[in-house]
Amino acid sequence: MTTETHERAAALAGLARDTPEIVIDLDVVRANIDRAAAAAHDAGVAMRPHVKTHKLPQIAHLQVQAGAIGIQVAKLGEAEVMADAGIRDILVGYPVVGEAKLARLGDLAGRVSISVTLDSDEAAAGVSRIASQRGVTIAVLVEIDTGLRRLGLEPGTEATDFAERIAALPGLQLAGVFTHEGHVYTQARDDAERERLTLEACGAAVETAREIRRRGHAAPVVSVGSAGTFRFAIRCPGVTEVRPGTYVFNDRSQIAQGAATEADLAAVVVTTVVGRPRPERIVVDAGTKVLTSDRMLVADPPATFGRVLGHDEWDLVRLSEEHGVLDIPASADVRIGDRLVIVPNHVCPTINLATAVTVIERGSVTGRWPVAARGMVQ
Amino acid sequence: MTTETHERAAALAGLARDTPEIVIDLDVVRANIDRAAAAAHDAGVAMRPHVKTHKLPQIAHLQVQAGAIGIQVAKLGEAEVMADAGIRDILVGYPVVGEAKLARLGDLAGRVSISVTLDSDEAAAGVSRIASQRGVTIAVLVEIDTGLRRLGLEPGTEATDFAERIAALPGLQLAGVFTHEGHVYTQARDDAERERLTLEACGAAVETAREIRRRGHAAPVVSVGSAGTFRFAIRCPGVTEVRPGTYVFNDRSQIAQGAATEADLAAVVVTTVVGRPRPERIVVDAGTKVLTSDRMLVADPPATFGRVLGHDEWDLVRLSEEHGVLDIPASADVRIGDRLVIVPNHVCPTINLATAVTVIERGSVTGRWPVAARGMVQ
Repeated sequence: MTTETHERAAALAGLARDTPEIVIDLDVVRANIDRAAAAAHDAGVAMRPHVKTHKLPQIAHLQVQAGAIGIQVAKLGEAEVMADAGIRDILVGYPVVGEAKLARLGDLAGRVSISVTLDSDEAAAGVSRIASQRGVTIAVLVEIDTGLRRLGLEPGTEATDFAERIAALPGLQLAGVFTHEGHVYTQARDDAERERLTLEACGAAVETAREIRRRGHAAPVVSVGSAGTFRFAIRCPGVTEVRPGTYVFNDRSQIAQGAATEADLAAVVVTTVVGRPRPERIVVDAGTKVLTSDRMLVADPPATFGRVLGHDEWDLVRLSEEHGVLDIPASADVRIGDRLVIVPNHVCPTINLATAVTVIERGSVTGRWPVAARGMVQ
Repeated sequence: MTTETHERAAALAGLARDTPEIVIDLDVVRANIDRAAAAAHDAGVAMRPHVKTHKLPQIAHLQVQAGAIGIQVAKLGEAEVMADAGIRDILVGYPVVGEAKLARLGDLAGRVSISVTLDSDEAAAGVSRIASQRGVTIAVLVEIDTGLRRLGLEPGTEATDFAERIAALPGLQLAGVFTHEGHVYTQARDDAERERLTLEACGAAVETAREIRRRGHAAPVVSVGSAGTFRFAIRCPGVTEVRPGTYVFNDRSQIAQGAATEADLAAVVVTTVVGRPRPERIVVDAGTKVLTSDRMLVADPPATFGRVLGHDEWDLVRLSEEHGVLDIPASADVRIGDRLVIVPNHVCPTINLATAVTVIERGSVTGRWPVAARGMVQ
């Protein structure tokens, strides 16, 4: 830990009106957005950030202003918030299933540019039907499983056959292929392995798009991405679009992935020490209701729930809903009422728990923003 | 699994307007409340339910109507919501630290009966100061650590000495002792051990209260509790008040603790199957943004994130933010668009993620309630 870190932690701690509170440093957000935008631009790859990390229309607009061609969301509720806020190009990176959601998808497609990801004939039939009913065309990316084992078809023939069926459905426009190479987070143990696995995954997506094109279909888009693999993915020949999310804020997992440094942390949790029942144990007012129970997104994650900025040796060893328990040296100079700045393991779900966040610029509070797309699960 | 379970799951699944959605069966809630109220009444112990589980003023009122003397909350924001809704007796079971919170505590004490838990001279000084300034008296329970190793003083002399210092502070009224024997969840492996550990913890609280009384102070209250230990704690001689929370809804952990059966489940998550990329893998539309990453509250928790009502063999083996991944038999008859009912590992933080919940009575939807005390972390 450096003096600079200590000073930054102290400054951040003092800026929250009360705790626990997420503080967003908008200067660091802008730097993170600009740096990634420049890297993608230099690589000739389009940016479509996943807004799940921030859930804030204000930051989505910063991303678009920096050159993003649009955004990705997971859920229709997020798309509606972002469309209401003036974002014009939205990829719903999630199968839209069920009549209620299809009707909302149709509404959205009538007012902004909407594309979706699909990996099943059942979901494709629904999207095709609503697009036809509404007289709109919805662009489709075929989701490929390049190692995450979540959604997605096998690269190659399985995905290509499905793409052909998509191309034949009314109301749909086959736009290309989509993968989220999230398995790299937990399978790779160093940058060499991260690079190899990322290029393997992206290469499989590129090759599948080529196979689709060889069958005579336009499939211009090869969309890949995650914040942790961004720096490798933009250098994969044939990738046309990347979708990092966490890069706007960063977190303990991104630092562990080598994708960010402490200086790139733009969102932290300010907490207060509420108890020191034993000299070697303190309790802060942030538990799982603030930090979640998420472990770090790394191979063999340590069983701790965040680290303390400026006190690398003070891990959060246990959380309950309202209590964060830290083991500290018995001699540590920390008192009840002191504030500590926590770097969360995984910032995206942490933001999703907050009703509002404190925003700072040039070291001063300039706003408290409601997390407009928080809790949009439907 | 029984035919009855299958039928109940199918009925619940059909009642959500869209998914993922929490469905609350208010008839089961009432039965759970009444059964616990009767057990506490028969044992001569007062009920003060922790409302963190439901965060719904409507259910707090049901608890009070069934005889609860008041409620417990963790945070002032929860207390404010409940006071606004007409709940008159609120224990803030958390150290109130910092000027902003002390001012809010003073406001609350001016309009409802407020008590607090304390385990430090620093926090006690603040509460004493605000009570004196406002001309109110705030009742204090001394928090004792009976095994959880979170907050709380050692039972016996350490806690008794602190109680004497509390009694000497202006604006405070020493009311008794408080413990949360939550360690029983993870340390006990059967009911015999649960009973032994609960009675040990409660006995330590009772004995500390007696020591305080022997020093000439009134300390009438011995407040203990958790849903998992409720049935043992009410039978501990000297305990005057119990504070179960999860008993209103129950969850997978409570069933595993032997504190509830499947018939007592009053809150479940209705999900939709959005993908079946392989015959032996389905994906549902509930991930950690709905179910949290919480493991079961048991010794050696299994690494799964919820079970499927009516399909005991279909564990949720992996979650990401929006995806729940289930391993199923390749021959299983389940399709994209089907709905599954998930029993969460831990219902309290699951409710905290929901903006609103669907309420059913006599098998029909009778409302959709905003989760009024959701996200109240300050």
